[in-house]
Amino acid sequence: MQKGLSEEKIKYIKHKALKLRIDSIRSTTESKSGHPTTCLSAADLVATIFFHFLHYDIKHPKHPNNDRFILSKGHSIPVVYAAWKGLGVLSDKDLLALRTFDSVLEGHPTPRFAYNEAATGSLGQGLAIGVGMAMNAKHEKLDYTTYVMLGDGEISEGSVWEAAEIAAHYKLDNLIAIVDCNRLGQSGESLHGHDVEKYAKKFESFGFKTYVVDGHDVEQIAQTLQACFVAKDMPCVILAKTLKGYGIEGTQDKNGYHGKPFKKEELDGIVTTLQHRFSDANAYQETENYVPKLPKSVIDTEHKRITIDLHQDKNTQFFDSNQKIATRKAFGYALAALGNANKDIFAIDSDVKNSTFTNIFEKDFPNRFIQCFIAEQTMVGVATGLETRGKIPFAATFGAFFTRAYDQIRMAGIGRNALRLCGSHCGVSIGEDGPSQMGLEDIAMIGAIPNSIVLYPSDGVSAYKLTELMANYADGISYLRTSRPATNMLYDKNETFEIGGCKVLRQSDHDTCCVIAAGITLHESLKAYEALKKQGVSISILDLYSVKPVDKKTIIEVAKRSANKIVTVEDHYLHGGLGCAINRAVINEGIHVTNVAVEKISRSAPKDDLLRYAQIDSQSIIKTVLNV
Amino acid sequence: MQKGLSEEKIKYIKHKALKLRIDSIRSTTESKSGHPTTCLSAADLVATIFFHFLHYDIKHPKHPNNDRFILSKGHSIPVVYAAWKGLGVLSDKDLLALRTFDSVLEGHPTPRFAYNEAATGSLGQGLAIGVGMAMNAKHEKLDYTTYVMLGDGEISEGSVWEAAEIAAHYKLDNLIAIVDCNRLGQSGESLHGHDVEKYAKKFESFGFKTYVVDGHDVEQIAQTLQACFVAKDMPCVILAKTLKGYGIEGTQDKNGYHGKPFKKEELDGIVTTLQHRFSDANAYQETENYVPKLPKSVIDTEHKRITIDLHQDKNTQFFDSNQKIATRKAFGYALAALGNANKDIFAIDSDVKNSTFTNIFEKDFPNRFIQCFIAEQTMVGVATGLETRGKIPFAATFGAFFTRAYDQIRMAGIGRNALRLCGSHCGVSIGEDGPSQMGLEDIAMIGAIPNSIVLYPSDGVSAYKLTELMANYADGISYLRTSRPATNMLYDKNETFEIGGCKVLRQSDHDTCCVIAAGITLHESLKAYEALKKQGVSISILDLYSVKPVDKKTIIEVAKRSANKIVTVEDHYLHGGLGCAINRAVINEGIHVTNVAVEKISRSAPKDDLLRYAQIDSQSIIKTVLNV
Repeated sequence: MQKGLSEEKIKYIKHKALKLRIDSIRSTTESKSGHPTTCLSAADLVATIFFHFLHYDIKHPKHPNNDRFILSKGHSIPVVYAAWKGLGVLSDKDLLALRTFDSVLEGHPTPRFAYNEAATGSLGQGLAIGVGMAMNAKHEKLDYTTYVMLGDGEISEGSVWEAAEIAAHYKLDNLIAIVDCNRLGQSGESLHGHDVEKYAKKFESFGFKTYVVDGHDVEQIAQTLQACFVAKDMPCVILAKTLKGYGIEGTQDKNGYHGKPFKKEELDGIVTTLQHRFSDANAYQETENYVPKLPKSVIDTEHKRITIDLHQDKNTQFFDSNQKIATRKAFGYALAALGNANKDIFAIDSDVKNSTFTNIFEKDFPNRFIQCFIAEQTMVGVATGLETRGKIPFAATFGAFFTRAYDQIRMAGIGRNALRLCGSHCGVSIGEDGPSQMGLEDIAMIGAIPNSIVLYPSDGVSAYKLTELMANYADGISYLRTSRPATNMLYDKNETFEIGGCKVLRQSDHDTCCVIAAGITLHESLKAYEALKKQGVSISILDLYSVKPVDKKTIIEVAKRSANKIVTVEDHYLHGGLGCAINRAVINEGIHVTNVAVEKISRSAPKDDLLRYAQIDSQSIIKTVLNV
Repeated sequence: MQKGLSEEKIKYIKHKALKLRIDSIRSTTESKSGHPTTCLSAADLVATIFFHFLHYDIKHPKHPNNDRFILSKGHSIPVVYAAWKGLGVLSDKDLLALRTFDSVLEGHPTPRFAYNEAATGSLGQGLAIGVGMAMNAKHEKLDYTTYVMLGDGEISEGSVWEAAEIAAHYKLDNLIAIVDCNRLGQSGESLHGHDVEKYAKKFESFGFKTYVVDGHDVEQIAQTLQACFVAKDMPCVILAKTLKGYGIEGTQDKNGYHGKPFKKEELDGIVTTLQHRFSDANAYQETENYVPKLPKSVIDTEHKRITIDLHQDKNTQFFDSNQKIATRKAFGYALAALGNANKDIFAIDSDVKNSTFTNIFEKDFPNRFIQCFIAEQTMVGVATGLETRGKIPFAATFGAFFTRAYDQIRMAGIGRNALRLCGSHCGVSIGEDGPSQMGLEDIAMIGAIPNSIVLYPSDGVSAYKLTELMANYADGISYLRTSRPATNMLYDKNETFEIGGCKVLRQSDHDTCCVIAAGITLHESLKAYEALKKQGVSISILDLYSVKPVDKKTIIEVAKRSANKIVTVEDHYLHGGLGCAINRAVINEGIHVTNVAVEKISRSAPKDDLLRYAQIDSQSIIKTVLNV
């Protein structure tokens, strides 16, 4: 057993907890919105960590060896802002600007406030992000602790259990989950109410060292945290039995007070009530404020532009002009080359590495390859955690299966995380495995996110070089859409590509329309080109390898030289696909546009049957071209 | 202990299991694709259920009291097809057409084959669907058993644990999960390999009665199933230790054989090997084939058109023309009215019923209200299960949180399930809670799915009547996008609405452009209209309450009368939103279009600040109109 905290220290923390309570109420009352009662349940937990255990260079929130505190139950963030105020990071004025336009103190955490580790508040996400951060510490041999605070309602989310099993599998003994079991969700009692042992049993079966504590007993919390620090080879979880609205009679442990700030006219009375209820803490006189222990200093590295050279690649022969290669495999080669060029490149898999070809990277860099098993939400969360800690993670699975992690992707967008995602097996062209395995909504899904880019290579060379561009894109989420079948090489190894670019593959002075495509449909378009040529019909063809952003200028130029007509053809559903991007780009240019896309639910059959069924094969393209 | 199966019966089942093995191999070899080794591990489990325990009216797969067998690990479906062949449902010719275009036997299950209960194969989904079906049995007092077969790799998915906790919470003792623990995933060993007890411990902690069996011991499997049938108040799980590729030396229990069919030239040898390996089963002479016991007969009900009358609604006063009401609340009233009109209407919540207002329904129909706690994947899965069993479930949460269940929604699309989804709190207009709570990609997400419809009401009357339309839309997923703030009533209670319709709210003979909007931006557009009118500028305004499908004809007509100009304004991200739908509709009409949408990540602040920041407030609309 650890030596406990001094009586003085306990008193100090209790005093701070009272201040956190009062400040949480003040800020939410001032903003007329927010979740004070959820702050009251968490205050003692937060105070104990922030005012005794935290290792942190207060002036440098991005210090690589700071402890990490992730508030997964993001709606309790006012109590954490109050703690940062208590440590001198925020002023009282800052605090009271909560939820106003110019304040970085948002109603749920975002990294606009640099001390927030992650954008949370969409529930169920923090633990996986914490797993990524804890993995980073292990990888870099840093000694920081990653704390993740969750709510008891929140842990109904399956994503929490995914992340838990991965945390245990990787023996992350530098990760501490704290569950604020305040019994009440938004609309009623959580799954097990105050039967906290039931949650403990679950975590235990998932491989956690578990502790049940009275979440309002600072001494017990502190002792338990000390036990967590010395636990080995297992992540720890503290299940803290707390009361929502703790300290305020009439509100405490009562349903119906979620997300309800106290009114301005009630404020003084409430504060007095709390000061009375916690009279010892109130009477306590602070002598010296806690200054977090400085983390062991580590120099952070800045990323320089990462370059790879296809000519020098040890697999360069697979990219010769006479070769066929699947874009997903070219991605794998590029990823391995990137891994060689930069030590911060990571690959994260969810048991499909032999389909996405991240196994090529794994072979060379097993220590930077993370297997997340069939747990895509965790895969994306881990990527987010790693990225926040300065890594350049590529997460790859079937494009279809990123739908499982759409909330995590959405939140990474809000978190300004530069996730690199590669979705393989896009479209009906995967063939026999059928619709459940086809990514047909991925452009819509990722394209919607602000600052995202969507790249869609059609051959090995472009797949390789677009992967390189992704490694260097730091302004948001980048997505590479790869195809299953092997396809002909379209480009010479010297060809260059850029985000927002496109390639004119066929063009003449008498084109009857411009066909815009990418991936399999680009190859079908090239077949259509040859057949049409024999009939004396000429078309221009454009490779839209950058679907977002699009190269509006070139598209319009080529279309205007192609009888002012565009046909878009894509192996993606109609709404939100490549055609949408083109429509928006040319809408006011007087260009006639026809969108061809997958509009029916596909089937399980050989690829060519399915391309024909979806009317995106060369024959259908020919018909469409002749019709327009 | 139950009386065991007769020796004769055991022999019969083993014989059938051998046939399933051989047929699984034959069909996948014929189709040159598929997952035979995963069928071999599951064959004894499937044979024991299908050839001894199944209650099923073979001629009527939709019989309401048939047992339900959901293959969550969908890639093993050939073994189930083989079982249906064994029961006389399929011919050998049918079986060998696996994965060909005209066959309904797809590579992963879809309901094109009527005996498949659900579209699966995207992993982690079957258990929640099974929960829905088991709940239906309880509700209807039917005695069918719901079986869900999962893979050990698959149970890394968090969605499985979400569904497990809900199954236990509702004491679904008519639900049996069977995990085929064959140790190997696609690319390597699953999380716990053959340490099956670890999985058992997890299920136990989640409230299941757990059994560990040798999954190749028919007698043990049968005895365990008998124990499951008599277990009370708890769902059961059978963790079956199996070998992938069981029975074929060189393949059995070896990595690298996932999704690899045997070659045609190997086929005879492989079959001989199996017949040799299971020589007793091979020698067994069938005398009488198993005929599944008929379920207790129940008459199914067909749905007639469901109608509700706002004039007669007990809450009709909230829809008077001088009232303000949030569309989310109007949805709640309509849902309650529908519940009154039809006994098959269900509401499913994930702890936000007081935000989506499904609590209005709950108050009147507590027995048809299902609380799924904070587990959206399960909520959608349960809805899918209920819908398959003839119910009309409405699942509601924040639009943003449906992203958590996007894979479930995608698969329900493939499953031709008529899910009714209501996403509340759309857009930046929610204000202070900030971007994590804002649904800004929901139109893109749902709009992409084939056969889906997207409805977006702007006032109470339309919200009420669109909800009624959803109840009657059976051709796919319907989505209602509701807003947080209360808004003015725009329509009289007599107004009628239709899927694919729109409303022209303002129009004159000298309009300078047509503003198309819905929700909050429609109200901002109406404000802009008044301000512009004062400046002598006239515009037409169109309420696009049906975003998918759109009323192309009316839009073009109105735009042509409005100086050939359209401005779309939406509280949704740019890509994949309302503007995309309009662009596609008018692209070849020579109409000038400007898309205004949310293009930056929003913040946490009062609603009006955020509308302004996103440039979708009335002032921004005025500027845009004056610019075009």
